[in-house]
Amino acid sequence: MSEAAVRTGRRGRSGGGAARRAARTAVSVETAKYIERNVPNYEVLTEDALAVIEANAETVLAEIGVMFVDNPDALDRWRDAGADVEGERVRIPRGLARQLCSTAPSQYTQCARNPERNVVVGGNNLVLAPVYGPPFVRDAEGGRRYATMEDFEKFVKLGYMSKWLHHSGGTVCEPTDVPVNKRHLDMLLAHMIYSDKPFMGSVTEPSRAQDSVDMCNILFGEEFVQQNTVMTSLININSPLTFDSIMMGALEVFAKNNQASIISPFIVGGAMAPVSIAGTLTQAIAEVMAGVAYSQIIRPGSPVVAGTFVTSIDMNSGAPTFGTPEASHVTYGMGQLVRRLGLPYRSAGGFTGSKLPDAQAAYESANSLNMGLLSGVNFMLHACGWLEGGLVSSFEKFVMDADQLGTLHQFSKGVEMNENGQAMDAIEEVGPGGHYLGCAHTQANFKDAFWRSDLLDYKPFETWEDEGARDTMALATVRVKTLLDTYQQPAIDPEIEAKLRAYVADKKASMPDSFT
Amino acid sequence: MSEAAVRTGRRGRSGGGAARRAARTAVSVETAKYIERNVPNYEVLTEDALAVIEANAETVLAEIGVMFVDNPDALDRWRDAGADVEGERVRIPRGLARQLCSTAPSQYTQCARNPERNVVVGGNNLVLAPVYGPPFVRDAEGGRRYATMEDFEKFVKLGYMSKWLHHSGGTVCEPTDVPVNKRHLDMLLAHMIYSDKPFMGSVTEPSRAQDSVDMCNILFGEEFVQQNTVMTSLININSPLTFDSIMMGALEVFAKNNQASIISPFIVGGAMAPVSIAGTLTQAIAEVMAGVAYSQIIRPGSPVVAGTFVTSIDMNSGAPTFGTPEASHVTYGMGQLVRRLGLPYRSAGGFTGSKLPDAQAAYESANSLNMGLLSGVNFMLHACGWLEGGLVSSFEKFVMDADQLGTLHQFSKGVEMNENGQAMDAIEEVGPGGHYLGCAHTQANFKDAFWRSDLLDYKPFETWEDEGARDTMALATVRVKTLLDTYQQPAIDPEIEAKLRAYVADKKASMPDSFT
Repeated sequence: MSEAAVRTGRRGRSGGGAARRAARTAVSVETAKYIERNVPNYEVLTEDALAVIEANAETVLAEIGVMFVDNPDALDRWRDAGADVEGERVRIPRGLARQLCSTAPSQYTQCARNPERNVVVGGNNLVLAPVYGPPFVRDAEGGRRYATMEDFEKFVKLGYMSKWLHHSGGTVCEPTDVPVNKRHLDMLLAHMIYSDKPFMGSVTEPSRAQDSVDMCNILFGEEFVQQNTVMTSLININSPLTFDSIMMGALEVFAKNNQASIISPFIVGGAMAPVSIAGTLTQAIAEVMAGVAYSQIIRPGSPVVAGTFVTSIDMNSGAPTFGTPEASHVTYGMGQLVRRLGLPYRSAGGFTGSKLPDAQAAYESANSLNMGLLSGVNFMLHACGWLEGGLVSSFEKFVMDADQLGTLHQFSKGVEMNENGQAMDAIEEVGPGGHYLGCAHTQANFKDAFWRSDLLDYKPFETWEDEGARDTMALATVRVKTLLDTYQQPAIDPEIEAKLRAYVADKKASMPDSFT
Repeated sequence: MSEAAVRTGRRGRSGGGAARRAARTAVSVETAKYIERNVPNYEVLTEDALAVIEANAETVLAEIGVMFVDNPDALDRWRDAGADVEGERVRIPRGLARQLCSTAPSQYTQCARNPERNVVVGGNNLVLAPVYGPPFVRDAEGGRRYATMEDFEKFVKLGYMSKWLHHSGGTVCEPTDVPVNKRHLDMLLAHMIYSDKPFMGSVTEPSRAQDSVDMCNILFGEEFVQQNTVMTSLININSPLTFDSIMMGALEVFAKNNQASIISPFIVGGAMAPVSIAGTLTQAIAEVMAGVAYSQIIRPGSPVVAGTFVTSIDMNSGAPTFGTPEASHVTYGMGQLVRRLGLPYRSAGGFTGSKLPDAQAAYESANSLNMGLLSGVNFMLHACGWLEGGLVSSFEKFVMDADQLGTLHQFSKGVEMNENGQAMDAIEEVGPGGHYLGCAHTQANFKDAFWRSDLLDYKPFETWEDEGARDTMALATVRVKTLLDTYQQPAIDPEIEAKLRAYVADKKASMPDSFT
């Protein structure tokens, strides 16, 4: 809710019903600054436990090693860096990976085409980005269906309109109506022209990573791209302990061009890592250290984010499960381990296994968002819109989660301890048995004192019933429509837009369609 | 999910579909032990901030003071204890309240009629109790309606059947079909005979507190009651800084009889306390110190719980709001302050302002439950079933929240750091590119490795769709029915039951009905 709406909405003080209604239906395109935490992180592991896991991770790297598959250049690089290479197995002597990681920056700025939207990834900051990867979309009207480029553009627009979202993301859904070998071009174009927030590059082929760099050269200028980070892209590790040539090829392109990569194990617990928390953390931090070390071999000082994506599993059905305590343990622990490496941390999101944006989705997502905030995550992918274990991007859930992200901002401000915060004058003024609604301190502070949802229902029961007794899903359907109806494209230099469109058209014309 | 169900449900290992289906529909009456946290608390305030708030609270008590209304005996007691009494205003010299609080136990055992259900309130423990106080109930079939004694009994039965709920609670809803001056008798009887979990006493009149003690004398034996705590009851402070004679009268009865009271400010932020966090904490800890001190004046060593109930407020509508960041700040901070007093702490719950058990309800409740766990709460009232700002006890939400309470248990176990937890053998056995599903470590650990919901949907999409594409609310409706259909009353000595029923009948016959 904008400050103006709070002001006009105040009871008995101002312009009455019409002004209040107008303010309530106004759509803000304001974007909050990325979160700068003024609250501590939650730490679930003791110093002793951290030391054990770190020592074990060194053992894993030195004795078990990692695989770099179909990538002879990588093997040569590792050999040169001092690793023991046997076939595609790379065993990294104790201490070497950590030493190589030390050249990675502890934080970096990702530039957006609108400099006001630049984000600083690392430190106490938290940057929020939307769901990534689902092949399906769902909304109340159309149900569940394969995602299209039209859906993709809608999600980019919703992200642009979402106050608490700092980042436009990457594959907000898979546009399955565009050939696999061409869709990255349309996706990048959509992020570049429909939003002015920072975005992610393509990782599905090294050549597509290069296309991402080339398009950024058009958007930002080649010199700017070489001197600044303008993309943060998602490089998944094939857990356990395997680095494939496609992902590593994309990482190589980005690192060489000074662009950031999130290097992130993708772990379904009990399948890609041990069922135990400490075992999962050991493997995950070993994997991250190997991947980050490799990025620094490619280009020392290139920006990276140490990630982890972890779910538990329902041993009955084999389904991954979300918002569970085991994921929280791993996410808190991994935050501690990554901070000891001095790297930015990516994890968490609005995760759920639910098929609908219902109570299950909200319980699981809230559990997951809270753990993300308190675990010190610096870059949160999937912060909004994730449904059905990542198979579905949900329009309603996008705006529901995006609204909840406001609570993370407010909580992170911490507790004001100055004289105004202490409010001793107010306590004295009101005294026993009084009330604070009218006192001077309340009047001076109420506008910013309490976070307020832009979506959820706070109405009196009778009003709510008269308006159709709508649940959150129904309110979200309205909000999606309102946001899309009022969307206005941020200004872009027409010459640059034309060049981007020409680049995409030329590239698409240069190769046959492929849907595999 | 019971261990048996996990075992029979394991794919490809056992009795097939029929056994799995039987296990899945079986209803467990197992009750988990209260939570013993093996994880740290989250602390939002620095040492400096805590010292400032504590000093300010002493100033409030010494200079502003508190009111003890319509209670001349209390004023005499305060005067005797060294306070400065002026009219009904009690000013407590610096240090006196804290000194008086020091005789209160840091933890106590509340006995249940089934000793296996005894709970220890304090320390690192967390005891979970259901919603308290709503005049309305809601379920999918009947909608929202005034609560009756039949509803009340159903909630007691649901609480008894809920594995993760340790406590039967008190006014799980207000049975509005029973006269106000008699309903406490029926409520106590229901807790005593339909459940064997610990419960709460009546606080709506001192005489009803005495009835609670008298009925406990029948249930447990008079000597046992004098030597043990068998009730934990809810004494609200009339914030700001006011203690009324009804609540204090009930407190006096309980303290004299060695029964526990939760002494708890009830604060809608900005109305009953300053809009700022530090101001609210100052007032709340001052109120708690005055209330606890008074309990110790009545009987040094009598068990108490230092509570806080705090909501934010929507300044547009005046509605209290829940699951918000301001409530989290206060709840975390109050936990720190209460621990420094050496007292058990009550706060949090599955709070929401939503009218329905929908996504809003789940977001807000999950935010609130997570903060309760991490803030070190020892006694959590309203842990399940709360809806619409406490106006409604919801049957569906009761089982939804009660299921989520399982995540608090699992998270609290912390991270296993022994050799099995470290899982180095498993990482070596599986190696790069393998998978863990079949490895020895997984086989040995999978049963207990991951928390599993008894309610939420983990099914494949196609199965879920074939079964009607049910949302959480629909699944909860089924679970409520299943639990109530399979409820069996725990055994009770028929002579004691007869005496309890006779006590209730006699008491009810002894006075005219009153509905005000």
